Amino acid sequence: MAKSRFEYVRKFETLDSCLLNTWIVVRVDGKGFHKFSDRHEFTKPNDDRALNLMNDCAVQVLLAFNDIILAYGQSDEYSFVFKRKTQTYNRRSSKLASTVVSLFTSCYVFNWKKFFPATDLLYPPSFDSRVVLYPTTRNLKDYLCWRQADCHINNLYNTCFWKLVQEAGLDNRQAEERLKVTDSAMKNEMLFSEFNTNYNDESEMHKKGTVVYREKAQSKEADESDTYVLKKRGGNLEVVVDHIDIIKETFWKAHPSILGEQAVD
Amino acid sequence: MAKSRFEYVRKFETLDSCLLNTWIVVRVDGKGFHKFSDRHEFTKPNDDRALNLMNDCAVQVLLAFNDIILAYGQSDEYSFVFKRKTQTYNRRSSKLASTVVSLFTSCYVFNWKKFFPATDLLYPPSFDSRVVLYPTTRNLKDYLCWRQADCHINNLYNTCFWKLVQEAGLDNRQAEERLKVTDSAMKNEMLFSEFNTNYNDESEMHKKGTVVYREKAQSKEADESDTYVLKKRGGNLEVVVDHIDIIKETFWKAHPSILGEQAVD
Amino acid sequence: MAKSRFEYVRKFETLDSCLLNTWIVVRVDGKGFHKFSDRHEFTKPNDDRALNLMNDCAVQVLLAFNDIILAYGQSDEYSFVFKRKTQTYNRRSSKLASTVVSLFTSCYVFNWKKFFPATDLLYPPSFDSRVVLYPTTRNLKDYLCWRQADCHINNLYNTCFWKLVQEAGLDNRQAEERLKVTDSAMKNEMLFSEFNTNYNDESEMHKKGTVVYREKAQSKEADESDTYVLKKRGGNLEVVVDHIDIIKETFWKAHPSILGEQAVD
Amino acid sequence: MAKSRFEYVRKFETLDSCLLNTWIVVRVDGKGFHKFSDRHEFTKPNDDRALNLMNDCAVQVLLAFNDIILAYGQSDEYSFVFKRKTQTYNRRSSKLASTVVSLFTSCYVFNWKKFFPATDLLYPPSFDSRVVLYPTTRNLKDYLCWRQADCHINNLYNTCFWKLVQEAGLDNRQAEERLKVTDSAMKNEMLFSEFNTNYNDESEMHKKGTVVYREKAQSKEADESDTYVLKKRGGNLEVVVDHIDIIKETFWKAHPSILGEQAVD
Repeated sequence: MAKSRFEYVRKFETLDSCLLNTWIVVRVDGKGFHKFSDRHEFTKPNDDRALNLMNDCAVQVLLAFNDIILAYGQSDEYSFVFKRKTQTYNRRSSKLASTVVSLFTSCYVFNWKKFFPATDLLYPPSFDSRVVLYPTTRNLKDYLCWRQADCHINNLYNTCFWKLVQEAGLDNRQAEERLKVTDSAMKNEMLFSEFNTNYNDESEMHKKGTVVYREKAQSKEADESDTYVLKKRGGNLEVVVDHIDIIKETFWKAHPSILGEQAVD
Repeated sequence: MAKSRFEYVRKFETLDSCLLNTWIVVRVDGKGFHKFSDRHEFTKPNDDRALNLMNDCAVQVLLAFNDIILAYGQSDEYSFVFKRKTQTYNRRSSKLASTVVSLFTSCYVFNWKKFFPATDLLYPPSFDSRVVLYPTTRNLKDYLCWRQADCHINNLYNTCFWKLVQEAGLDNRQAEERLKVTDSAMKNEMLFSEFNTNYNDESEMHKKGTVVYREKAQSKEADESDTYVLKKRGGNLEVVVDHIDIIKETFWKAHPSILGEQAVD
Repeated sequence: MAKSRFEYVRKFETLDSCLLNTWIVVRVDGKGFHKFSDRHEFTKPNDDRALNLMNDCAVQVLLAFNDIILAYGQSDEYSFVFKRKTQTYNRRSSKLASTVVSLFTSCYVFNWKKFFPATDLLYPPSFDSRVVLYPTTRNLKDYLCWRQADCHINNLYNTCFWKLVQEAGLDNRQAEERLKVTDSAMKNEMLFSEFNTNYNDESEMHKKGTVVYREKAQSKEADESDTYVLKKRGGNLEVVVDHIDIIKETFWKAHPSILGEQAVD
Repeated sequence: MAKSRFEYVRKFETLDSCLLNTWIVVRVDGKGFHKFSDRHEFTKPNDDRALNLMNDCAVQVLLAFNDIILAYGQSDEYSFVFKRKTQTYNRRSSKLASTVVSLFTSCYVFNWKKFFPATDLLYPPSFDSRVVLYPTTRNLKDYLCWRQADCHINNLYNTCFWKLVQEAGLDNRQAEERLKVTDSAMKNEMLFSEFNTNYNDESEMHKKGTVVYREKAQSKEADESDTYVLKKRGGNLEVVVDHIDIIKETFWKAHPSILGEQAVD
């Protein structure tokens, strides 16, 4: 086909390939989700419909990208880990970040009604995304630990905060003031003594966030496990949605195939 | 709030700020839209519902980003031009590219039914995006010329191709063969002599693609102009959707405020 | 020739091409030159031998790189401007920065004795280098203005400082204190009233720094000009070493061929 | 000190920090050393004066940069490995690459006469440099293996080539032709049967290249080892120059402190 004299402008495009043999993480983050959750009347401190919609989007992204080995999500964010040796899009950073966030967003709007049958989507939500590279498996695991620790810290805080507001009748500023000086142990104690709530009994999804990964097809017994809430076929593997501790090594030892040979730095 | 020992992983995030005083273009491209248009039975060679949906998404993006001065779209792609001195997101490349593509995608799914009332969206579509920098106004204009010349070349080809298939009864391969040796003049002649079609009379949107830009609020007279098909308020300006030649300087001279002072390199 | 199984490591090398159509500046800076100038007993505030050695190195760099159109130097630094459309080393940033600084350093050591016949070089000096890109000619000129303004500011300060130390008998801290509160006019006045020195009469090289550029071979008359101190053949052009104001437009108007057609942004 | 209105140009400088926790290699390469070695009548296939000068420069670079843990050199190139967690120059790529190549070049010219007492340096030689990042210790070792395998391949070839030219009287093209079809074993056999030369008996420096690293101060016995040709004090450690196999793990096991704890990926 004919070419125009303007073709030269293509040469201004630059390559942004990710360094080889590093773990590529694409993190997707909700934009303005404080306002979005207010407008759509999300329950506080956690809205299971919204979390399950996020998880469903993550599953769709895993089904679309064979080289994503694991995703971790909490609140309005999700991190996708590509296998270390992936050649998807020649490891081009902007291509990976943009296609993941676009598909994630698309699924969010497309499947909204499935999770919010009684709530109209008032306006189109959006997310941003970024690529972060981790040279070693330790660094990658620490990244995931960072997000899960963040989930724990935020959820403990938010659980206390909304108890103080919804049950003790404090206003937002009073609740903030009250929590300012508390450490983790004091927050647990407050929940127990003032609100008759054992934090340990809270929902695993709220405390741990959500891990999505691939696994060889399991036997019936495994299916009955209460931690597996969803499985979809992707290649020969099943995509598993779980709410489980990934800070301890137990998880990684129980699922050595996730990081696989590439875990050997 | 408490910090975990994993915080160090944040330091692996790298800055990707765009060089100062360059024009930032974010181009959004449909992923797998050949299949998508087939599955959703887009009319050939152009589907006005699909094009108008794309244009509507572009308008939403302009309304969300004050520093986008102009967008140009054709087929399943759209280019957004940020003003040269924009400090949006501190000019971070991945942030700009990801938020634009996410909002664009979100609007596409959100507004599908408005443009395709009789067609269900079968699965969530997605787009990729990239940032390209242009140091001079000439380079930027040539970029836009490149996309509009591409629109013209493709549309002339596709118009011929589908005439040969839909009216002359050729199969796809025969139509390709027939067109392989034709230049632009021969294609125009073929349309005229064989299909009684004057290419000049074809739809401006199909021939020129779509330009979206901001303009000071117009008088009633201007509103009657047949080139303005849509206006929405964004700040003190109106967002205009137009199908017009941007290769000739006429457009830029008629709208000096678009590039503004920043056009002086 | 046989290849080893280790060849894969080459793929970790990344491209770092400079954005097209930008002015590429490579700035070379002395490392630890405060100590170096002390050890080699440079005269204060300026040592003409050292400055002329720097200028000679810059000329050698221009003779080696045809696409360097101009260099500007002062103190222990030199900036080299590559023409906007240069394809030298495919515009690879690290290749440009490293070869320029290496050649500059090599010339410095190689030619030391020519400029310091009575002083042994005690240890090998070194420089760093960096690439900075400027999208427009205005930005490039402002970069050069920045360096020349810096030269002026530093030289005025240093001239005062060393007068106070060498002639008025202050120690370093006293001289610093004295100068802390002075602006440019007060420094000029101090030189005039206390040290009988008209700053305007100081050496042009000290006040303006040094500009090295190419020029068409001049007639005899031009050679007699007192501003040209050195000319060497590089291609059909002569390399000129000058000490002249490049902040005012006069210089650029008198030498339109330096930036040439590429000055049109 | 006063600031000029041109200061804004500093903002065009961009950060180029190396990804954390990766091994940073700076490789220095001679520019035009084919011509340089001809003009200075280097002996063929190897000139020990030139190699020892290169090694001496490498030692100086190690003494100047505490965070360089090892260097490997052959022919007119040298690779410097920074420790994984180095914060030298905040890991800025261009700063590391430029200061290393500048100091290396400076030492080369400064110390020329020590190694070439009877040969004048005719013109200033130069080198380029680049940064390559390796995420894992295996990748880093493979990089070093790559350079040492390259040394072996080239030296075996060059040894044969110059025997054919200098002793068998072939011209350059004839020697090239003769070697084109030979593998490693055939080259060894050619040296033995035609030139009475056992390649194994060739100089270790020529066959293996040169490794420079730091080591705790050794006892007298170790000093008598024939592999240590030079030691200089750098901090509490000695800088050792050695010609030894680094492809086999033996070397790394014998010197676990070189990569140290940072070898655990």
